[in-house]
Amino acid sequence: MNNTAPLVGIIMGSDSDLPVMKPAAEILEFFGIAYELTVVSAHRTPQRMMQYAEQARTRGLKVVIAGAGGAAHLPGMVAAITPLPVIGVPVKSSNSIDGWDSILSILQMPNGVPVATVALNAAKNAGILAAKILSVGDEALGNRIAAYMEQLKNEVHEKVAILQSHGYRNAFDGQQG
Amino acid sequence: MNNTAPLVGIIMGSDSDLPVMKPAAEILEFFGIAYELTVVSAHRTPQRMMQYAEQARTRGLKVVIAGAGGAAHLPGMVAAITPLPVIGVPVKSSNSIDGWDSILSILQMPNGVPVATVALNAAKNAGILAAKILSVGDEALGNRIAAYMEQLKNEVHEKVAILQSHGYRNAFDGQQG
Amino acid sequence: MNNTAPLVGIIMGSDSDLPVMKPAAEILEFFGIAYELTVVSAHRTPQRMMQYAEQARTRGLKVVIAGAGGAAHLPGMVAAITPLPVIGVPVKSSNSIDGWDSILSILQMPNGVPVATVALNAAKNAGILAAKILSVGDEALGNRIAAYMEQLKNEVHEKVAILQSHGYRNAFDGQQG
Amino acid sequence: MNNTAPLVGIIMGSDSDLPVMKPAAEILEFFGIAYELTVVSAHRTPQRMMQYAEQARTRGLKVVIAGAGGAAHLPGMVAAITPLPVIGVPVKSSNSIDGWDSILSILQMPNGVPVATVALNAAKNAGILAAKILSVGDEALGNRIAAYMEQLKNEVHEKVAILQSHGYRNAFDGQQG
Amino acid sequence: MNNTAPLVGIIMGSDSDLPVMKPAAEILEFFGIAYELTVVSAHRTPQRMMQYAEQARTRGLKVVIAGAGGAAHLPGMVAAITPLPVIGVPVKSSNSIDGWDSILSILQMPNGVPVATVALNAAKNAGILAAKILSVGDEALGNRIAAYMEQLKNEVHEKVAILQSHGYRNAFDGQQG
Amino acid sequence: MNNTAPLVGIIMGSDSDLPVMKPAAEILEFFGIAYELTVVSAHRTPQRMMQYAEQARTRGLKVVIAGAGGAAHLPGMVAAITPLPVIGVPVKSSNSIDGWDSILSILQMPNGVPVATVALNAAKNAGILAAKILSVGDEALGNRIAAYMEQLKNEVHEKVAILQSHGYRNAFDGQQG
Amino acid sequence: MNNTAPLVGIIMGSDSDLPVMKPAAEILEFFGIAYELTVVSAHRTPQRMMQYAEQARTRGLKVVIAGAGGAAHLPGMVAAITPLPVIGVPVKSSNSIDGWDSILSILQMPNGVPVATVALNAAKNAGILAAKILSVGDEALGNRIAAYMEQLKNEVHEKVAILQSHGYRNAFDGQQG
Amino acid sequence: MNNTAPLVGIIMGSDSDLPVMKPAAEILEFFGIAYELTVVSAHRTPQRMMQYAEQARTRGLKVVIAGAGGAAHLPGMVAAITPLPVIGVPVKSSNSIDGWDSILSILQMPNGVPVATVALNAAKNAGILAAKILSVGDEALGNRIAAYMEQLKNEVHEKVAILQSHGYRNAFDGQQG
Repeated sequence: MNNTAPLVGIIMGSDSDLPVMKPAAEILEFFGIAYELTVVSAHRTPQRMMQYAEQARTRGLKVVIAGAGGAAHLPGMVAAITPLPVIGVPVKSSNSIDGWDSILSILQMPNGVPVATVALNAAKNAGILAAKILSVGDEALGNRIAAYMEQLKNEVHEKVAILQSHGYRNAFDGQQG
Repeated sequence: MNNTAPLVGIIMGSDSDLPVMKPAAEILEFFGIAYELTVVSAHRTPQRMMQYAEQARTRGLKVVIAGAGGAAHLPGMVAAITPLPVIGVPVKSSNSIDGWDSILSILQMPNGVPVATVALNAAKNAGILAAKILSVGDEALGNRIAAYMEQLKNEVHEKVAILQSHGYRNAFDGQQG
Repeated sequence: MNNTAPLVGIIMGSDSDLPVMKPAAEILEFFGIAYELTVVSAHRTPQRMMQYAEQARTRGLKVVIAGAGGAAHLPGMVAAITPLPVIGVPVKSSNSIDGWDSILSILQMPNGVPVATVALNAAKNAGILAAKILSVGDEALGNRIAAYMEQLKNEVHEKVAILQSHGYRNAFDGQQG
Repeated sequence: MNNTAPLVGIIMGSDSDLPVMKPAAEILEFFGIAYELTVVSAHRTPQRMMQYAEQARTRGLKVVIAGAGGAAHLPGMVAAITPLPVIGVPVKSSNSIDGWDSILSILQMPNGVPVATVALNAAKNAGILAAKILSVGDEALGNRIAAYMEQLKNEVHEKVAILQSHGYRNAFDGQQG
Repeated sequence: MNNTAPLVGIIMGSDSDLPVMKPAAEILEFFGIAYELTVVSAHRTPQRMMQYAEQARTRGLKVVIAGAGGAAHLPGMVAAITPLPVIGVPVKSSNSIDGWDSILSILQMPNGVPVATVALNAAKNAGILAAKILSVGDEALGNRIAAYMEQLKNEVHEKVAILQSHGYRNAFDGQQG
Repeated sequence: MNNTAPLVGIIMGSDSDLPVMKPAAEILEFFGIAYELTVVSAHRTPQRMMQYAEQARTRGLKVVIAGAGGAAHLPGMVAAITPLPVIGVPVKSSNSIDGWDSILSILQMPNGVPVATVALNAAKNAGILAAKILSVGDEALGNRIAAYMEQLKNEVHEKVAILQSHGYRNAFDGQQG
Repeated sequence: MNNTAPLVGIIMGSDSDLPVMKPAAEILEFFGIAYELTVVSAHRTPQRMMQYAEQARTRGLKVVIAGAGGAAHLPGMVAAITPLPVIGVPVKSSNSIDGWDSILSILQMPNGVPVATVALNAAKNAGILAAKILSVGDEALGNRIAAYMEQLKNEVHEKVAILQSHGYRNAFDGQQG
Repeated sequence: MNNTAPLVGIIMGSDSDLPVMKPAAEILEFFGIAYELTVVSAHRTPQRMMQYAEQARTRGLKVVIAGAGGAAHLPGMVAAITPLPVIGVPVKSSNSIDGWDSILSILQMPNGVPVATVALNAAKNAGILAAKILSVGDEALGNRIAAYMEQLKNEVHEKVAILQSHGYRNAFDGQQG
């Protein structure tokens, strides 16, 4: 977190979701986007969740990233209260059935209340999506995202070069079987 | 609904759930249990939902039956607010994926916040379960439930007798192929 | 178990379910609710199961918690015999297919015979649900449950405070990656 | 049903399963095997089920075919009581989730208590399997089964001949699109 | 479509997806957001797809909504090329397996390339999400979205009033069973 | 294997299935039933499979137990050739998707060709089912099976006694957490 | 079928699969590829299947397309016998569980015995894949396939033009809702 | 890789797929088929993918093997561009939901654009399938494949002999429990 007022609120249902959700914060830092990160439990702190969602827009947040597992109600409930775009991260927590419950209870929202759902445990992608959303009003950020995508491409090209020069048998020794 | 103060609150996420949820009301009437029935949407009326859940116990309700489909957050959110037992009815609504989303987002609640989940669309069973719960403090009601179970048994015995006397080919002609 | 006559019967299909089912007993103790705990196998001791279910109400039990895995018939069969409310705990046992078999064979009961199903392995929630059910006729217990829910909320608030003061990178060091 | 003492008991959880279960009776008649057919509900008539299962062997039955849908406990519970082989037919009843619940709650029996499960709604195959089982002690029946399999083969050969002589476009006109 | 330069591009893999995708256009019109709508097939017109995605940002689009069914590659491929936020609508087309293929091939994108996935067939929600995204740089639009959410709430309150005055049996006669 | 001519043929698609399939042999030995055990691969040795199935009955076998994983064709193909009852054991092999492929490709046989399917990896139950089938013509074996079921019951009763005398916290120390 | 010796053998497990499998024949005719079409049942005519597979290569076939539903063993068994490439078409037959059984029992073949699986009911794609395979040794055919792909592209472009000129509301009136 | 111009192009979405995809290369070497192997990411290097697919045929490739996990778009996108046969290998990568996403997003291609899908992680089978495809125009290769299948058969026969001489208990000691 940095000194500027946060634009993105990263919330999660439990502190046990923190290891999964960290990459959302890290990629936002990479893009130089101010954020805040805290725990808001739909089921154990419903009033706190209501308050967080009701104040999100007036507090200056532009996007909310919400991660939760199992019967994951946090992203959908926040999206029911705030007009801000809400990104949902299905977390494959210990009490989840292979992640299916987390995915379906975040994704399958009724008409009127969308949640922008990303892949299971894909907090990094949630952060990138938040950046893409913020770039709608920030052309420089849009350029940074384009550069980031270019960088992903170059990393692949480097792998390709290693494969070609070393042969696939020796290309990534020590990294994988 | 009748004049006595309702003991059971039947709520559903949308009026389109009404045909599925009606049998909960009907079986409660059969058992002579006062109830109320209304629409409370977690996603379109979150404040109403909060209020309903917060007042449920003080208003004299003893059990809440909540039905919802898709990413069904109503039962779990109500259970997060009221200390009353909450029965969840997964509804196979038109926007549901064969009911899996409804089931998992009601059933897979985290530790501390149980929802008593019944089968897909099983509003009648939700009503019976509410009756069973109320019978904990009402022996006469317990006897009525035992009698109801006896009646189910007798209906099977009658079917058995028809099968035996008519033969299975003619037993239920006109009813099924 | 304590000296008072048990109000809750905790049964499980196999002693191998004991580690999963223990938290039901522990949370009942926390709430000061007398219980009994034993093994009743629908498939290996069907007569014992019949007898247990037939005598449950007359023995003074108010709620039965039944845990089982795989083709889990114990909760549904007990619910077919006793008018008491039965809570089913789907156990992800070693012979279960990711828990789907346990869940579906407990949840999908036919009309007339509900089982109050909780999440996979959620014995603790089964205990809390039993307490909520008993609170229907016991206002003091209802207050203890409300206090317990308040305590869950406070635990989250403490986590929030630690997160805020330490920063998310150092908040729970040693606990998670 | 015929005059000889029945060797196969066909039971089903509800008379609504009758249309699905009829083919079991018909194929047994085809093989000249005496059978009985009735309704035995694990959930609505548990005592009747116990009695049926306990008396099955002493009454002279050699095989039990049990069909049920949803949380289908009938086949497994009968198999828990009688030493006879029990064939389970998962029925895709109206309250079933695409048949998955019926299949898993019949198939996934614990060690010690097998149920010979056939495909969803495959009552005809249950009847054939019963015949195959009875043929263990009846060589003539074994020959009739072998002849039946030969007949299935010949029916395919006839279809092949029609396809070859008419061309696939005109082969089965009026029968399928 | 209207005269202003479109901010949202609605694309779909096939014209057969049009009935499902129409509500995205309708809700954007409701919010007064300029859009374009066309068919772009990842599998039949890959070059067109590349070109569409490469030019989307420079042409002034701010958000892309992409709908597709089965092995649905359109949303993910467009998201791989443009830095704009891409919203994916899984379509339950005739060649889809209950929608699971559409959902998983849109949702489960790798790190670096997020797609904001909405519920199965939820084109209306895709439109609302696009509006929420655009509101990041448009406070008036944010207010219109907040008003829309208020309107949804009021519709529920009206249903509640009808239920209360007519009773649930007569509340919505002619509309549902 | 013993000197008497085998009544049960245990076959498996690969020697890697041996650890899963062993309990079928062991329980048959327990019941004193002569068996043979070998590898027959539908996919790598189709001619051997044909021959095995064609000769099974004439060689004196009464029941075939076939285990296989993944796209498991062995049980169904053997059942297509021999009039003997065939028991299928779905094996959760390393190339299986959580066992679903093994189960469905064994269970879902077409009309005319049943396979008596048991639970995933349930080779022991396959052996017991084979014994139950053989008991159709062998009353003494039927009595041994009844005694075995009695023994299972007694083992539970012993566990119950330990639980009661030691308390559930100390009942099975050293065995489970 | 035409006079030249067939290069592709289209087989299916039952004549009821014919409506699903017809498009394979039609697209092969479109490409001018000689084929034969017949019924070969793995389960009802195993010897015929063996013979068909054993003679396929020597009879001059280059590719086999095999369609089947439920526990679909035909494609995999044929692939186990012939060195020719075998294309499997999972058929969603009436006895199939939403097609999952058909897909998994065709797709999940063990090492050494591949089946080239196409989408559920995708017989047309099986025909195109057969053409692509034959084009390996036939450059002119490769060009025809490239032209066919161009034609698919042009059909989309025409739809795009209609959409643009008529507007999406009137574009395909009479065709879809 | 060897000096002759490659006939098979093995590509994968990420270098992390290399351990899974290696067996495709090894079996092609076993059959003496020239191949190339590299990384082509649909999502991180879409232009490279387009170019690879567009040039594949003119560069002399005859078959493409493409492996990818999660929302796996590589096989389908390559098949949309090149007229060559494309074999898809669903990879159970770390971000995959038990492989279901990988399978469905490769298998369920729309009409006109087939992908020859093999089992989850079955790169070896992809290589064998490529060889089978190439054998369409290469009789000697067809013979080598037939010989390979013979070898698989012999390996089973050797296992059978070991089982028979050592007994199943001691047959494969040290290898498996």
